[in-house]
Amino acid sequence: MSKPLSFQDVIMRLQAFWAERGCIIWQPYYTQVGAGTGNPATFLRVLGPEPWSVAYVEPSVRPDDGRYGDNPNRMQVHYQFQVILKPDPGNPQEIYLDSLAAIGIDRREHDIRFVEDNWESPALGAWGLGWEVWLDGQEITQFTYFQQAGGQVLNPNSVEITYGLERIVLALQGVDSVWEIEWGNDFKYGDALLQSEIEHCRYYFEVANVDALRKVFDIYEGESLSALAQEPPLVLPSYDYVLKCSHLFNVLDTRGAIGVVERANYFKRMQSLAAKVAAAYAEQRKRLEYPLLPPDWHVDEETGALTVAQPELPEVLTGKYPTQPAPFVLEIGVEELPAADLDAAIAELDELAPALLGRARLTYDSVVVAGTPRRLLVYVEGLAPQQPSEEVVVKGPPARIAFDAKGKPTGAAEGFARKNGLTAAQLERREMDGGEYAVAVVRNEGRPTPEVLMELLPSLVAAIKFDKSMRWNFAGISFSRPVRWLLALYDKAVVPFDYGGMRAGRTTRGARLEGSPQVEVKDTEGYFAALDRFGIIADKYARRETIAGQIAALAKEAKGTLKQDDALLEEVTNLVEQPTALLGHFEEEFLALPGPVLTTVMKKHQRYFAVENKKGELLPVFIAVRNGDDEHLDSVRSGNEHVIRARFSDARFFYNEDIQHKLADYLSKLKTLTFQEQLGSYYDKSVRLESLAGRIGGLLGLADAELDTAIRAARLAKADLATHMVVEMTSLQGVMGREYALRSGETAAVAQAIAEHYQPKSAGDALPESGPGIAIALADRLDSLVGLLAVGMAPTGSADPFGLRRAASGIMQILLGHRISLDLRQLIGWVAETQEVEVSAEAQAAALEFIAGRLRVTLKETTRHDVVEAALGALAYDPYRASVHAGQLAQQVERAGWPPILDAYARCVRITRSQETEFKLKPDAFKEPVETALVEAVRKAEKSIGGEPDVDQFVSVFAPLAAPIAAFFAPAAEGGVMVMDKDKAVRANRLALLQRIVKLGEGVADFSQLEGF
Amino acid sequence: MSKPLSFQDVIMRLQAFWAERGCIIWQPYYTQVGAGTGNPATFLRVLGPEPWSVAYVEPSVRPDDGRYGDNPNRMQVHYQFQVILKPDPGNPQEIYLDSLAAIGIDRREHDIRFVEDNWESPALGAWGLGWEVWLDGQEITQFTYFQQAGGQVLNPNSVEITYGLERIVLALQGVDSVWEIEWGNDFKYGDALLQSEIEHCRYYFEVANVDALRKVFDIYEGESLSALAQEPPLVLPSYDYVLKCSHLFNVLDTRGAIGVVERANYFKRMQSLAAKVAAAYAEQRKRLEYPLLPPDWHVDEETGALTVAQPELPEVLTGKYPTQPAPFVLEIGVEELPAADLDAAIAELDELAPALLGRARLTYDSVVVAGTPRRLLVYVEGLAPQQPSEEVVVKGPPARIAFDAKGKPTGAAEGFARKNGLTAAQLERREMDGGEYAVAVVRNEGRPTPEVLMELLPSLVAAIKFDKSMRWNFAGISFSRPVRWLLALYDKAVVPFDYGGMRAGRTTRGARLEGSPQVEVKDTEGYFAALDRFGIIADKYARRETIAGQIAALAKEAKGTLKQDDALLEEVTNLVEQPTALLGHFEEEFLALPGPVLTTVMKKHQRYFAVENKKGELLPVFIAVRNGDDEHLDSVRSGNEHVIRARFSDARFFYNEDIQHKLADYLSKLKTLTFQEQLGSYYDKSVRLESLAGRIGGLLGLADAELDTAIRAARLAKADLATHMVVEMTSLQGVMGREYALRSGETAAVAQAIAEHYQPKSAGDALPESGPGIAIALADRLDSLVGLLAVGMAPTGSADPFGLRRAASGIMQILLGHRISLDLRQLIGWVAETQEVEVSAEAQAAALEFIAGRLRVTLKETTRHDVVEAALGALAYDPYRASVHAGQLAQQVERAGWPPILDAYARCVRITRSQETEFKLKPDAFKEPVETALVEAVRKAEKSIGGEPDVDQFVSVFAPLAAPIAAFFAPAAEGGVMVMDKDKAVRANRLALLQRIVKLGEGVADFSQLEGF
Repeated sequence: MSKPLSFQDVIMRLQAFWAERGCIIWQPYYTQVGAGTGNPATFLRVLGPEPWSVAYVEPSVRPDDGRYGDNPNRMQVHYQFQVILKPDPGNPQEIYLDSLAAIGIDRREHDIRFVEDNWESPALGAWGLGWEVWLDGQEITQFTYFQQAGGQVLNPNSVEITYGLERIVLALQGVDSVWEIEWGNDFKYGDALLQSEIEHCRYYFEVANVDALRKVFDIYEGESLSALAQEPPLVLPSYDYVLKCSHLFNVLDTRGAIGVVERANYFKRMQSLAAKVAAAYAEQRKRLEYPLLPPDWHVDEETGALTVAQPELPEVLTGKYPTQPAPFVLEIGVEELPAADLDAAIAELDELAPALLGRARLTYDSVVVAGTPRRLLVYVEGLAPQQPSEEVVVKGPPARIAFDAKGKPTGAAEGFARKNGLTAAQLERREMDGGEYAVAVVRNEGRPTPEVLMELLPSLVAAIKFDKSMRWNFAGISFSRPVRWLLALYDKAVVPFDYGGMRAGRTTRGARLEGSPQVEVKDTEGYFAALDRFGIIADKYARRETIAGQIAALAKEAKGTLKQDDALLEEVTNLVEQPTALLGHFEEEFLALPGPVLTTVMKKHQRYFAVENKKGELLPVFIAVRNGDDEHLDSVRSGNEHVIRARFSDARFFYNEDIQHKLADYLSKLKTLTFQEQLGSYYDKSVRLESLAGRIGGLLGLADAELDTAIRAARLAKADLATHMVVEMTSLQGVMGREYALRSGETAAVAQAIAEHYQPKSAGDALPESGPGIAIALADRLDSLVGLLAVGMAPTGSADPFGLRRAASGIMQILLGHRISLDLRQLIGWVAETQEVEVSAEAQAAALEFIAGRLRVTLKETTRHDVVEAALGALAYDPYRASVHAGQLAQQVERAGWPPILDAYARCVRITRSQETEFKLKPDAFKEPVETALVEAVRKAEKSIGGEPDVDQFVSVFAPLAAPIAAFFAPAAEGGVMVMDKDKAVRANRLALLQRIVKLGEGVADFSQLEGF
Repeated sequence: MSKPLSFQDVIMRLQAFWAERGCIIWQPYYTQVGAGTGNPATFLRVLGPEPWSVAYVEPSVRPDDGRYGDNPNRMQVHYQFQVILKPDPGNPQEIYLDSLAAIGIDRREHDIRFVEDNWESPALGAWGLGWEVWLDGQEITQFTYFQQAGGQVLNPNSVEITYGLERIVLALQGVDSVWEIEWGNDFKYGDALLQSEIEHCRYYFEVANVDALRKVFDIYEGESLSALAQEPPLVLPSYDYVLKCSHLFNVLDTRGAIGVVERANYFKRMQSLAAKVAAAYAEQRKRLEYPLLPPDWHVDEETGALTVAQPELPEVLTGKYPTQPAPFVLEIGVEELPAADLDAAIAELDELAPALLGRARLTYDSVVVAGTPRRLLVYVEGLAPQQPSEEVVVKGPPARIAFDAKGKPTGAAEGFARKNGLTAAQLERREMDGGEYAVAVVRNEGRPTPEVLMELLPSLVAAIKFDKSMRWNFAGISFSRPVRWLLALYDKAVVPFDYGGMRAGRTTRGARLEGSPQVEVKDTEGYFAALDRFGIIADKYARRETIAGQIAALAKEAKGTLKQDDALLEEVTNLVEQPTALLGHFEEEFLALPGPVLTTVMKKHQRYFAVENKKGELLPVFIAVRNGDDEHLDSVRSGNEHVIRARFSDARFFYNEDIQHKLADYLSKLKTLTFQEQLGSYYDKSVRLESLAGRIGGLLGLADAELDTAIRAARLAKADLATHMVVEMTSLQGVMGREYALRSGETAAVAQAIAEHYQPKSAGDALPESGPGIAIALADRLDSLVGLLAVGMAPTGSADPFGLRRAASGIMQILLGHRISLDLRQLIGWVAETQEVEVSAEAQAAALEFIAGRLRVTLKETTRHDVVEAALGALAYDPYRASVHAGQLAQQVERAGWPPILDAYARCVRITRSQETEFKLKPDAFKEPVETALVEAVRKAEKSIGGEPDVDQFVSVFAPLAAPIAAFFAPAAEGGVMVMDKDKAVRANRLALLQRIVKLGEGVADFSQLEGF
């Protein structure tokens, strides 16, 4: 084997590679940027219509990635190789894979994967869809189709390829740490950079002067704005300062000086700057009349829309189509779909494909939908060769209008006939809809299936919708990821439909491992044979079972059992089309880390399965699933082992840093972590939680010991936010709190409550179990809700930066799940008292309404709209009871006996609701029998109804009143009385009686919301 | 011809070239640096003993080089390609020239020159010696041997090669402007960078917020220091901030916000930071035990001295040497010597070589010294083949001690004999020095010439001293530039002496144009034949005449005459060894610029000769002198024409900017230009000059109109300092002032006075001619002198940052040149009154003494020491009269009649100078004839002497007194009198008479300073 390339060799090879492919070779920017994207050669050049292809190295400065040189591949500076291709060349993934070959990475010997990773830079107002590229589990490249930058929608889109040079060279040279990499001429990476790394970490984490650098941020923001305020604006100088601000922010952040809300503010400032710069740049290019625009590209002067002449597709050539029912297969070839999008697409096609065939009047035996990350399949068995013919009768004008006295068609008839492609003479008269009409009997000849499909298949592809979709080329279509080929075979023949500038054919592509070779297939059978040949398991369920079998076997091989994780299995199934599981090992020493840390790292970062022994303890192994066959598996394994080692060593770095202090020690650090500017720091929040948890615990009836636990846990609940581990992996908040609490000598109950207070994290998640946990969970969410609403931070549209909807949902879930009835108005009042800001009555009401809103949404999923409103109308302040009442009411309203009850109650309500006086009942003053009977019945009901009756109680109490009420309201002839009697006293007494009846239902539900009220 | 390389191709080729030669390929730094030197890969790595070879691109940000994109090759950002070779590989120039070949620059087709350029970065505390490399007159590379960085002496030294990529590619692609360069793949440099250039210029020159950025400078300086204050110091983070400070300073400077003294302060701050960082880095590498040190390099732990084993030189092999007188030639082969150093070396060798041969007792016919930038030659005709033998008689102990009574040698004799390499028996007795002694007659056999030369030649080379010399390799020797070969031939035979790790041989090197090929020569004749073959004219005088002839002919060809410039001719003669003059043209439009601007640019920047027509107007041509033959002269010419076009267009940019405003408008800008912190701005100085010029003009007796001129001109004298042109080319100060004054409608007299006030710029320079010019010139210099001395800024040793010595000289030259007699004490008093600070009497006296000091130096060049002191003793306050008196006195003291005159006067002085009383003369009281005769003579003298007699007047008046004085002092026997008579009255009267005589000479000279007084 020849000596692997050095770091500098790799750079020079990549430069040469991309220069040969038409790129400009650019240089790193002269100010610190977090990524090559920040270089104006990317951020600005991707804007506007002009093409641009560029490649360059960028030393990317990310202070908070610093690990004092202790981590084998995580550093505060790493080197990116950045490529921008604008527009999309059509095969950027393949070019990219060729570039890997150019630096000695043979895809046959590795597991190269495109793993969903949607890129977003809030500071730059930019986002795109794409992937991380994994080399044996190691992220080596970020591959993104830019959709937006500086707040501007991009057209054309740019492909951004960002190589992580160190990781690539690590793999190439097979060394264990970036510091061991040969930079060039036998000189090591560590010789060049290790000392700098250590020192910069110390500077960023320990030394940087926070107050002074904040000032510089302000000054530089001012410089950026003043450069933009020139006429014309100075775009590039302004942008330099945006980058400088961004770096300063990163330094401040790394020093731990910036809280969540303050961070949001800084981001807003940077985003606003970036957007202004982007807009000014776009304007400038327009003013310069787009000097780089190719002659055949045209920008509309008014709309700014770009038109690019597209190559004509060849003439449609059809072959010989089946004349008997035959199989049909559609393959939509894509770049790697995200796991969730693959599921969504399969589900949609499951509905769309049969519906389409139905609409097309095409018969078939069965439809099967399948898919892998690279392809979506619709397979139709026994598809009829053509539509059946049909006769359609179209109703025309009435016969008396269509025909004159002599039976001759009038002008109206002629017009109608013409509209239906007939002559007036061809019209018929028919009796229908109770009259005689002129009708056109239109015969639709059944068209051949291929013709129909050519018309309809484009709409089938277009109809597949995704949560997030993207554009990539001039065809203007959008999809989850770029569609790169279409195959449509009706038995042996192509159905050459056009979509997005492509034409369907008989060419599929093989597996990534093989270089995705184009394969022409003879027929549908040949198509499936081709997939088989590549080991591609197109059916998701079959694939899942294959994987499940493989990983279970490997777990056994490792003398353990799989740590079951269905969600992970589902995801992994969607990440491969040619699955081969492999077992990897890591050093036992890492087992000293808390289990959740290890599994979080394995799952979230690597999609590895964990293996445990019978005691439920983790074993020092992992199972990865390769997308490819089992050749060179050792090389893939060793790569993956390298990666997990680096990941774990990263986690250990945080852990060891963290346990230098007791959990309580982190409280003071919370003072520098702003929760929200007006609402103070997380420390302030902790203080509030401590007091609220006690009061809420009391309300929940906790015992004294539990109350103590709640108070202590509330104090510590947020402390882990200041630990390195949680700063790094937010999903471990609470989990680390528990872990560190135990290590710090807190009681198990306190530790549990700390962990639980984040639950439920989402709908369906586990609820806090312990009383203290519940108390803090409620306190925390109410505190956020009330405080943030009071300072005007209500979520808008889809934006809910503080997760208030989730907070409200959580409150609701806890109360409902634990059947806790309480008056939220009281709690909100308490919370309001503790806030740093004044919380008005309106704000409190808004908070209540906000929670009720979540409850409303939830209840309506299962319950009739009017019923939900009725329950909430009475009990919005007590979600649990509201839900109980809604449930009962929903059943009651379906009962046969319900209408009279509702009617009786409604009559009482309707006649009394305009009265402003509450009348006094004088039972003895009643004279009429219907009156006395009703008084008697009401008294009885009042006696039997309890303090807070639920719906069922109410109904059972009220049901006997229905008859007396009906009698009371009956016409005078039938013994009824007139409530609005002329005699004022009589009238008052009757109203008093009805008011008493209405009172029976108060607090049960707002029956007036019900249909039929 | 194939397509020339693109900009990116050049970069990639250079990367590959240097990577193959063992360099690490590095990346640009992530913060704005003014040059690749700022990258820590240079600034820090050149420190300490570890080797380091690196190459990288560096976008170099120099705000004040911005020209709004108007200049064809001057921009606020340009791209450098930086190479560091540590240690010197021995042939860095040749490797460099190979690298040019690698990017398509054939040295045969161009004029590639190494032109002295000593690099210094005060901000980085760094300096080195080296060259600009010129490609057809265009500077394309900076080539430097680093001597010091961060205030540390470097060992080993580093070779720094900094390519100016744009200029190289301009030449390669043959385009007219950097913006037209093809960057790569048909994409133009201007497409990438022109807009950014324009905008950044606007930002730097017009928009940057000065106050805010000053604050950032302070903050960043603080960050730098606080990073260094850590234990151990954080070197690299600290250094990042040094660079950021440096860039901020550049921005402030470009905004014109920094005055001269403030600049000095900023530099001091940056230099101090850089020195601290450098020291900390050196310390750190030591602590890390120099990880990159090769195993055979050794650093002494205590002294830090580096020892590197050097390859042994081969055994000395001598050939057959002449036995008859024969020619000898020594060639010291060097990298290009600076012009002045070549002169100095020739002058030194002219003395050293004969002296050495004399010391060596070697006879010869003649010695000729010659030299070119690449070689120093000593040619000896008829050098004897060996020393003559000689007998030396060494005197020993007296015979009576050396020999015992029996005549046998004693122990003393034996010791003496041994010391002289004889036996006691060989001692002789000789009469000498008035006694008999034992003597050793030692016979020194004449040694062969080659043997003697091998011993002595190293000391000859070592004895050549330069103003600035440098080290370059481990031999530790120093020279003006590296010595790369030694040739020493005695007729046909090599004299293989060793120096600086080299051994002299028979190999010389050919011309640069030919690649400096090594040429072995057979004998001295062959050596000169080789030089001839390469067209190398070794003799400086012959070369000068050749050039003079060529350029005169070309001037004629251009239908003009050469604008004579002897200094330039001298310099050019020393820049080439193979001269070929060529005529180039430039656009006539540039002739619209003032002549001095054009000639300054041509001479100072390009060493071009100017050509003028009969009216003395410049023609649009220039004459350059190529180092090489006349092949491909067109390509060289076209390159040179390109360069001068860019230079002129640069000058035009300044000029056009400047003439947007009247000269007087620049006055207010002077307020921001600090003259000296305590002495205020240049505006303040202008105000002072205005008032002083009036008073001094009055003193000089200017007419009213002249006075008005002087006052107006004084006000405007400094205004041009704020213009772009003068900021850029300081040597044009005054010249531009005149030009702009005329354009602004000032009178010709005012304009002239402005220009003149800077004269004389040096000894021998023209003096101001007009009265106003003289007045301002004096005022300006006195103002600087008095003010700066008052605030303690007297020059020290060789450091005279404010040029006070030159100012004092100027005052003296003007007064002497224009024969102006005035009392400087009065002027100094006036100047003192106008200063912002108080000027003490001592400071005023110091100022006077400072000027007198310059006068003393000047007078002593031609005049006897005692005479000068005598003149200054009386007239230091009036330099003109002092010089006149010194001149006259110098003649008088040489006259035969002088001694009696001096003696007579001296007797009078000596006897009276201890008297504190001035006695009253009573003439009638004298009795003795010698008394009355003397009184009579004195009366006569007093009558004929004028108010301020000069020396001649004094002598002619005093001469007749000599005889009566002699008679007066004669012994009583001869009729003389005793001055100190017992009678008090007699004594007093005699003393009074003598005091009157002494008075005659007061203010003429301090005769007591004279020898023989």
